[in-house]
Amino acid sequence: MKRVRILIKPKKGLLDPQGRAVEELLKDRGFKVGEVQVGKIVELSVEDNENIKDIVERFIVNPLIEEYEIEELNNGS
Amino acid sequence: MKRVRILIKPKKGLLDPQGRAVEELLKDRGFKVGEVQVGKIVELSVEDNENIKDIVERFIVNPLIEEYEIEELNNGS
Repeated sequence: MKRVRILIKPKKGLLDPQGRAVEELLKDRGFKVGEVQVGKIVELSVEDNENIKDIVERFIVNPLIEEYEIEELNNGS
Repeated sequence: MKRVRILIKPKKGLLDPQGRAVEELLKDRGFKVGEVQVGKIVELSVEDNENIKDIVERFIVNPLIEEYEIEELNNGS
């Protein structure tokens, strides 16, 4: 088994209402922040021979509106 | 400004209903997966002198039920 992390963000240019809300809240409170994006993270252990890209694109991500990266994590992390 | 990524996951041992649902769905379909965890990712640009840990702990994360990591990203990513 290997451990993988999938980082999922709304595609650039698409609405990200959570990100907008966090950004405005922080700016209202005087913090100097910008370009807040809110997305999802999914970590899972998977057999070495599974096609993780296939699993991700069929079941985890909506490729119309989301972009993603797959990171392989060290064993045990 | 620097770009930071906050990775947020439910604390080990706490309920993670989304993770359980994804895990069971994938197993039902015959995939050999395990220990699925679903969390959040928040990316933001922040002035170099802002205390990002303070922002995260006050406004982004619920430290009772979530654990987090802060990663600094390369400029422009």
